[in-house]
Amino acid sequence: MSARNKSASPKGRVPVAVLGATGAVGQTFIRLLQGHPFFEVTEVAASERSAGKRYRDAMTWHEGALPEDVADLTILTCDPGEVGAKIVFSALDASVAGEVEQAFAAAGAVVLSNARNHRMDPDVPLVIPEVNADHFAVLDAQRQNRGWEGAIITNANCASTTATVALAPLHQEFGAREAVITTMQAVSGAGYPGVASLDILGSVIPYIGGEEEKIEREIAKMLGSADGNRITSAPLRVSAHANRVAVEHGHTACISVRFDDPVTPEEAKEVLSAWRGHEACRGLPSAPPLPLVLRTEPDRPQARKDVFTGRGMATIVGRVRHDPLMHLRLVALSHNTVRGAAGGSILNAEVLGRMGRLPGVAEGAW
Amino acid sequence: MSARNKSASPKGRVPVAVLGATGAVGQTFIRLLQGHPFFEVTEVAASERSAGKRYRDAMTWHEGALPEDVADLTILTCDPGEVGAKIVFSALDASVAGEVEQAFAAAGAVVLSNARNHRMDPDVPLVIPEVNADHFAVLDAQRQNRGWEGAIITNANCASTTATVALAPLHQEFGAREAVITTMQAVSGAGYPGVASLDILGSVIPYIGGEEEKIEREIAKMLGSADGNRITSAPLRVSAHANRVAVEHGHTACISVRFDDPVTPEEAKEVLSAWRGHEACRGLPSAPPLPLVLRTEPDRPQARKDVFTGRGMATIVGRVRHDPLMHLRLVALSHNTVRGAAGGSILNAEVLGRMGRLPGVAEGAW
Amino acid sequence: MSARNKSASPKGRVPVAVLGATGAVGQTFIRLLQGHPFFEVTEVAASERSAGKRYRDAMTWHEGALPEDVADLTILTCDPGEVGAKIVFSALDASVAGEVEQAFAAAGAVVLSNARNHRMDPDVPLVIPEVNADHFAVLDAQRQNRGWEGAIITNANCASTTATVALAPLHQEFGAREAVITTMQAVSGAGYPGVASLDILGSVIPYIGGEEEKIEREIAKMLGSADGNRITSAPLRVSAHANRVAVEHGHTACISVRFDDPVTPEEAKEVLSAWRGHEACRGLPSAPPLPLVLRTEPDRPQARKDVFTGRGMATIVGRVRHDPLMHLRLVALSHNTVRGAAGGSILNAEVLGRMGRLPGVAEGAW
Amino acid sequence: MSARNKSASPKGRVPVAVLGATGAVGQTFIRLLQGHPFFEVTEVAASERSAGKRYRDAMTWHEGALPEDVADLTILTCDPGEVGAKIVFSALDASVAGEVEQAFAAAGAVVLSNARNHRMDPDVPLVIPEVNADHFAVLDAQRQNRGWEGAIITNANCASTTATVALAPLHQEFGAREAVITTMQAVSGAGYPGVASLDILGSVIPYIGGEEEKIEREIAKMLGSADGNRITSAPLRVSAHANRVAVEHGHTACISVRFDDPVTPEEAKEVLSAWRGHEACRGLPSAPPLPLVLRTEPDRPQARKDVFTGRGMATIVGRVRHDPLMHLRLVALSHNTVRGAAGGSILNAEVLGRMGRLPGVAEGAW
Repeated sequence: MSARNKSASPKGRVPVAVLGATGAVGQTFIRLLQGHPFFEVTEVAASERSAGKRYRDAMTWHEGALPEDVADLTILTCDPGEVGAKIVFSALDASVAGEVEQAFAAAGAVVLSNARNHRMDPDVPLVIPEVNADHFAVLDAQRQNRGWEGAIITNANCASTTATVALAPLHQEFGAREAVITTMQAVSGAGYPGVASLDILGSVIPYIGGEEEKIEREIAKMLGSADGNRITSAPLRVSAHANRVAVEHGHTACISVRFDDPVTPEEAKEVLSAWRGHEACRGLPSAPPLPLVLRTEPDRPQARKDVFTGRGMATIVGRVRHDPLMHLRLVALSHNTVRGAAGGSILNAEVLGRMGRLPGVAEGAW
Repeated sequence: MSARNKSASPKGRVPVAVLGATGAVGQTFIRLLQGHPFFEVTEVAASERSAGKRYRDAMTWHEGALPEDVADLTILTCDPGEVGAKIVFSALDASVAGEVEQAFAAAGAVVLSNARNHRMDPDVPLVIPEVNADHFAVLDAQRQNRGWEGAIITNANCASTTATVALAPLHQEFGAREAVITTMQAVSGAGYPGVASLDILGSVIPYIGGEEEKIEREIAKMLGSADGNRITSAPLRVSAHANRVAVEHGHTACISVRFDDPVTPEEAKEVLSAWRGHEACRGLPSAPPLPLVLRTEPDRPQARKDVFTGRGMATIVGRVRHDPLMHLRLVALSHNTVRGAAGGSILNAEVLGRMGRLPGVAEGAW
Repeated sequence: MSARNKSASPKGRVPVAVLGATGAVGQTFIRLLQGHPFFEVTEVAASERSAGKRYRDAMTWHEGALPEDVADLTILTCDPGEVGAKIVFSALDASVAGEVEQAFAAAGAVVLSNARNHRMDPDVPLVIPEVNADHFAVLDAQRQNRGWEGAIITNANCASTTATVALAPLHQEFGAREAVITTMQAVSGAGYPGVASLDILGSVIPYIGGEEEKIEREIAKMLGSADGNRITSAPLRVSAHANRVAVEHGHTACISVRFDDPVTPEEAKEVLSAWRGHEACRGLPSAPPLPLVLRTEPDRPQARKDVFTGRGMATIVGRVRHDPLMHLRLVALSHNTVRGAAGGSILNAEVLGRMGRLPGVAEGAW
Repeated sequence: MSARNKSASPKGRVPVAVLGATGAVGQTFIRLLQGHPFFEVTEVAASERSAGKRYRDAMTWHEGALPEDVADLTILTCDPGEVGAKIVFSALDASVAGEVEQAFAAAGAVVLSNARNHRMDPDVPLVIPEVNADHFAVLDAQRQNRGWEGAIITNANCASTTATVALAPLHQEFGAREAVITTMQAVSGAGYPGVASLDILGSVIPYIGGEEEKIEREIAKMLGSADGNRITSAPLRVSAHANRVAVEHGHTACISVRFDDPVTPEEAKEVLSAWRGHEACRGLPSAPPLPLVLRTEPDRPQARKDVFTGRGMATIVGRVRHDPLMHLRLVALSHNTVRGAAGGSILNAEVLGRMGRLPGVAEGAW
């Protein structure tokens, strides 16, 4: 049945599948992969309820025009026996992602997952490639541990992503040890229909279920180190406050951070503006010109004005200043559904391909 | 000239004047004083530009119906030779408040000021009366130091107010030493026209000029101690992050706090729910039934739903929980133009009257 | 089982039940009936799913504090065998309201319904009492036609209500014949969770299912005439455009209207400002001081500033001006969940009681 | 002094100047002209207050990154003796535009104006080129009448633009005679700082000064006819209701329209979907693929989701349906600062160039 969808990819692009393709993150994958130079969406999969329908008939498309070539695909079930692609982007909900993604990895697929289920496993890379592309090294151990032909690679929670990119250059240079992180997160992070308008218009919701725990754990893992066997989190303790605000796109994070030794705002700004991120990302289609853009105006970054910097893939940092308690204070912003979800997964795949870690892609071909 | 306005107060209410009566805070004074059992607005004063006009003709009234008895008052200049009332609420801008308020105090008026100019003077009370009504004791020294017949009493910045009420019971019991405070502040805090809609719709502005410094200083002063000579700030160090969000009314503060010794969330909740504030406030017209309302739902307080608790005079606290870095985390909310500005000043005046510190009011009359 | 809930009403208030008590309109009924001088909520009923639970445990309470006396009521099923009260406010969804309300009416209850099911029946009053309290006259025919001991009385769709009050004085004086009505409706009109924040933030949704048809039919019925047998709609043809906007409370309607003969803005304003509505409403607890408040500023009414006029029960009309095509243009605003739903039903009940049409209430007692 | 700015244009682009370059519309001109294939901004002019400053220092840049090549231009005064370019985009305020634009036209410049001052002059084209590019024919008469070497061409008010494109195909086919148009307009239409957030958050402002009159006049002129001497407005009478809503970008218009004879929704949809606009626009850089995009979903167009269709230059029309009073109802949306202001002017210039009506551009070169 899936044969009909797996037509040979034009222009030599590599076929990929999107799991959970009808939801908000799934749609973002399809939007961002439209016209991608390396990947082509040849299969879409979703829940039993949607399976068998044409993609265009199975959901309300939320942003811009639905890509025509995907619109007519028949939705498959999330079953590795149905889906033929060996590169799989997973936008599945955490309630089902755990087992489904394992089944795909066992069946030989490289799964790029947005779900939280495997993020904290020590042999599963949790990667923002500009920050920790070297964590992909643990994939060999993962395959060996689990007897998989394929693999699972995860990207972080959207709010963790914002803060991690802002802290990475400083941590690499000065050793971050403690951080208080207060987020003001966009409603698009809650999916669709997500946050009720009656709850958020003219208000702030000072709670997002499970979010603070994710922020506290994931940042330390991404700033940690990997050897051939496992990833070890950095000794960075985080206190997170997660809030929902009346913003469509873009998570803002206010960060107070303490290092091994005091760091001045000037030293920090120099490090931040010089940072280019892991070289493995340079020039890839989804990599922004600068992974981190430092703003020096007193009142930036601002979600509406800055969130599309680097086509939504850059992290914007501003207000770097002295902290009366800890060492530094700063504000970071990034696009939660692009950088913090689908776009981050796609960049992970691009880097993996360049490294020779994607089935059917020769090392260094990109 | 002002004689026309100073008609004898009906029902034995004490005449009061509002300085800066045409601005946003000035209007809130007039709205909250409408029908007040003790005070009657008999004079309004504003800048030279407005002086001489009828109040109703000098501005756009922003909320509800303009009180008829004030509408026809002629606007006076902010000059103690013009204004006869000896109780003066000042909504003046900081650019002019310093000298004008001093002139009124020298001329014998008790000035209840919302401006920042004198807040940090050691002989000027900066008071949220449920928290530190005992700081009024410094007023005798103020008069002696400055040779004034009158006095200046200040109330705090609106965001400082939110955090101070939340921290006061905990500080009184456990000794707060360090706090990271991130605020999400309503646009009404910026006056009118204030924040441009193009800047705030769908966005967060991570900067409010001068606000973080005020928060850092004022909380420590209000939680400090007073003797007959001066007020000494508490040894509480604060790191503040101030943000503007698309909320009409209500400042939300996310607080991480460290005490002398560890405090559990259960201990904190017990203290917070038992707290009734300084007894001098009990039963006064502007005092809310509870100065601090503890919410136990996971996702409260929320600005739109909770800001009018206690007619806008209560502080709502929720999400009291363990902090991985410091000792406790919590969220506080209060109404910025009521509790955090005009309403706070009026309650200060009510307490002062009860204490026998208002001209023309006998101690204990209220 | 319902006996436990039907304790004798203190202070001689009449016991009432609320059907659909857990939803948004049901909650508004309970909020508005708190402390009502005539009525006391002694029973709450909802779907099978909620029945048997305590009210406080069956839903999230959305606005202010949940009234304590209602909080502990056990939720009943919507069955006249369970519910004892003979005055029943129905906040039921249209999908179930039809049959349930008929069953209650057959069992002797006077049902005040917010559902659309019976609104257009010629023997069912559709009433905004200031406009057409005389339509209650059809109730005798309704009982005879249907063999009911009780009755069904409906109130209009929230947007129909806004426009009807604005047009009623003009129609009564000049005979309205055609109107183009464009509404900008608050999200609270869609219930909870209702409109997704991702759909409405920074946007307008130019569609509300079924709304335009209701507006077009209901206004003509309410402006029509009743005899002992049936209600006849007025010969007013309406073209409606219904839009959802990012407003919490308050529906705004822009109206162009043509009369039998040309009407000048001055004539219209005179009629509007003189209008007091049907005398049967005067002085009742839920009746606003003025049912229609005419504003003369160029830019009013505005939802946020004006929606609580008359505690949410007044309709505010402004911008009365010449229309280049039809005769007049104007803007109307009213509170959609108060005036346009629960508050309107309660005022209907108050008027019915005064008229001697409520079981257990003597004519003229109020 | 202006010589420094008028460096030869690289790549053979034609030099253009922007008057009123520091305001919101002026900035949009500079943003949209960045990298334009035909035009290069070589001069910027503004008020005396800004003249002499570098462009980057004279204002806060609102959206995205300030184009580097313009950032360092020195701001000139709005004086044809200072500004050398013969193609001039005017974003001047109406308070000064009248005389300044005449002076430039007299001095030989072709002025593309966004101001209202000359829009209704019978010898001044008011053009949306897909609709009425043939109105440029009146330019010869304009030069003769006024003795100018240059010319003034205007584009319409932003809300007029939205409605005109939606009505043009229908008018051309069926003859529109009457329309009631209710707009819901974005805050960016009011410039910066423009609408105060306290006025628009959670609200609707049912008034925009002067807007309704513009809508009523301008649509009829654009749908009218031109001969060599003058433009004659179409016999279309319009009643407009203009509202401001909490939307950043995109004006929505609800339209009821009557034609010479009844038109069915099906006939209208056929005409709308077949319409391609005046052929003079086809393939020009600022022309969208389709000038009018017909949506068939029940709830579109929506500002946030659809406003960037055709890079903000398309008009999106939906909800084409029967009107109970007039003949048809429909909803139209377009981007107010792109299609409705700067982008519209630029497309006018592109068409004029193709027609051989721009100084220094050969007919048909583009």
